[in-house]
Amino acid sequence: MITPVILSGGSGTRLWPLSRPERPKQLLPLSGVETMLQLTARRTADRSRFTAPLVVAGAAHEAEIIAQLGVAGAGDATLILEPVGRNTAPAIALAALAAAPDALLLVMPSDHLITDTAAFQAAIDAGAPLAEEGWLLTFGMTPTAPETGFGYIERGTALAPGVERAVRFVEKPNRTTAENYLQTGQFLWNGGIFLFRASAILDALGTHAPDILDAARKAVAGAARSGRSLLPRASAFEASPSVAIDVAVMERSDRVAIVPCAIGWSDVGSWDTLYDVSPKDDAGNSFGGDVQAIDATGLLVRAEGLHVSCIDVHDLTIVATRDAVLVMPRGSSQRVREAVDALASPRTRNRT
Amino acid sequence: MITPVILSGGSGTRLWPLSRPERPKQLLPLSGVETMLQLTARRTADRSRFTAPLVVAGAAHEAEIIAQLGVAGAGDATLILEPVGRNTAPAIALAALAAAPDALLLVMPSDHLITDTAAFQAAIDAGAPLAEEGWLLTFGMTPTAPETGFGYIERGTALAPGVERAVRFVEKPNRTTAENYLQTGQFLWNGGIFLFRASAILDALGTHAPDILDAARKAVAGAARSGRSLLPRASAFEASPSVAIDVAVMERSDRVAIVPCAIGWSDVGSWDTLYDVSPKDDAGNSFGGDVQAIDATGLLVRAEGLHVSCIDVHDLTIVATRDAVLVMPRGSSQRVREAVDALASPRTRNRT
Repeated sequence: MITPVILSGGSGTRLWPLSRPERPKQLLPLSGVETMLQLTARRTADRSRFTAPLVVAGAAHEAEIIAQLGVAGAGDATLILEPVGRNTAPAIALAALAAAPDALLLVMPSDHLITDTAAFQAAIDAGAPLAEEGWLLTFGMTPTAPETGFGYIERGTALAPGVERAVRFVEKPNRTTAENYLQTGQFLWNGGIFLFRASAILDALGTHAPDILDAARKAVAGAARSGRSLLPRASAFEASPSVAIDVAVMERSDRVAIVPCAIGWSDVGSWDTLYDVSPKDDAGNSFGGDVQAIDATGLLVRAEGLHVSCIDVHDLTIVATRDAVLVMPRGSSQRVREAVDALASPRTRNRT
Repeated sequence: MITPVILSGGSGTRLWPLSRPERPKQLLPLSGVETMLQLTARRTADRSRFTAPLVVAGAAHEAEIIAQLGVAGAGDATLILEPVGRNTAPAIALAALAAAPDALLLVMPSDHLITDTAAFQAAIDAGAPLAEEGWLLTFGMTPTAPETGFGYIERGTALAPGVERAVRFVEKPNRTTAENYLQTGQFLWNGGIFLFRASAILDALGTHAPDILDAARKAVAGAARSGRSLLPRASAFEASPSVAIDVAVMERSDRVAIVPCAIGWSDVGSWDTLYDVSPKDDAGNSFGGDVQAIDATGLLVRAEGLHVSCIDVHDLTIVATRDAVLVMPRGSSQRVREAVDALASPRTRNRT
């Protein structure tokens, strides 16, 4: 049995104006009817193979998450509610402490897309034996483009069928380096998905990030329970450093292995990425919501709670909610942050 | 003294999604802070020269019109509330019957823009003596482009300083004809503004459109009063033919004169026209509402009740309300009707 650990602490602004702090990306139905969180929970819904999941999330999202998981067949989940966000290492520490020491934890971000679920299950099967032995397993996505927005992992010697030693973790590379990585075939995208024993990651945290483990221990020791939710003690958890698990442990441990896989993974990290992974009509349009198009091609349109009409426009991203509309060319989605940042400043803004 | 007659019965869809049946163009602040109706009322606000206006409007808009006129210094207006719309000839017949027989009526659409008010007052002065004598005066706008969307009036011999006989009224011409009209200088745009004695227009209606006059007489004879509003009898008014005053009278009468004028007139009949007459920033953008622009040029953006962010887009019309958004290239505003019409049909519409 494997225990899914779903990390739902993110609150990105890259999908503004649809994603907001109060309703982050993982709680939105970006690719279809179900939200990214629901799709993530469904991947481990087979209770003959997976236990009820542990979901680490911001306390403000508790009610929404419980409602969404109930619909997605994961009403048995335990929520671990972070009083503040402290990145993935402290979140994973909380989950590992809440689980049985010998539990095999499958850690998954809640806001990524995986289209080939069978290949993902096969990758889990390939990695499980080494995880049982105490290795820290990561899943390395076969790159399909020289992406500069992802971290990479360098592949090493084979450890078992379908599993290799991880030589090193590399932060987001520049374009030339990314092209080299793609060419050599020796580098895989770091998808932020992990498989390890609870005791193994706790040992590694104790060695490489003792202050994170210490804060998490105190937070769990002083935790309150409310229904199926665990509320770590805020004062203890707030004292934790805010560090990603890759930096805190994976880059430092010598017992890290990688399962290379091609599972149709996407982080859906921008409007352009969403367009790439979305089904399109014959005119190359991807529509969500109440959208009317006349002589329009190559559009990504998301309309939430209102109607959008497009006449004779092409290759645009149009995202409309009841309080904000974004219009930009497709291919510009890295600039959304400029808009969000500038909204705090009057410089670029007209108000009449 | 001149009695202003403001026609506020229009309910166009050409400025959708901002204009709606419940809030037509004349009730919107399209060009600035005040609505088109308020700007129209202000043109005749000098009570040493103009009496309180008669405003012919749809009954559904009574409260909004009273509120807007109060702010615009025309709280003394009498409203004539049409139970149904029957075009301009019946509307003018109602106003002429409600006025004193020898009153000089200045009929004005409520949804046009006039930027040179002094020139407009001078044109009224030029036309008034002949109107007093029983002529039906029109105001002909000096054309500035070969517009195919307007009616034209052919100029005739001089009748008095600044006033000429109107030879004929021409419906919307094709492009070649419009170019000829512009070149000869003998044709002026029909702006739908008129000056005549109440008795003169009633006589002309009796001669050329007796069924319209008859229906209007019965509607006024059976009218109810409520505050400053007159409510013509619905059953009688509904029986009236629906005809424009140009067709019912002006094209048929031989006592029609024209005052050629250049008064900065615009019918603001489309989003493109609004862009043309609006002040623009250095990047050629015209913004209304809460609009953010980053590297954007040549935009017409109207945001009502929500925020709009535009990044790196150019020469677009973007109109956003809390329930509908329109995006199209500038220069395409004649296609708005396609969108409005098609909204009734599922053919071009996605709903997910």
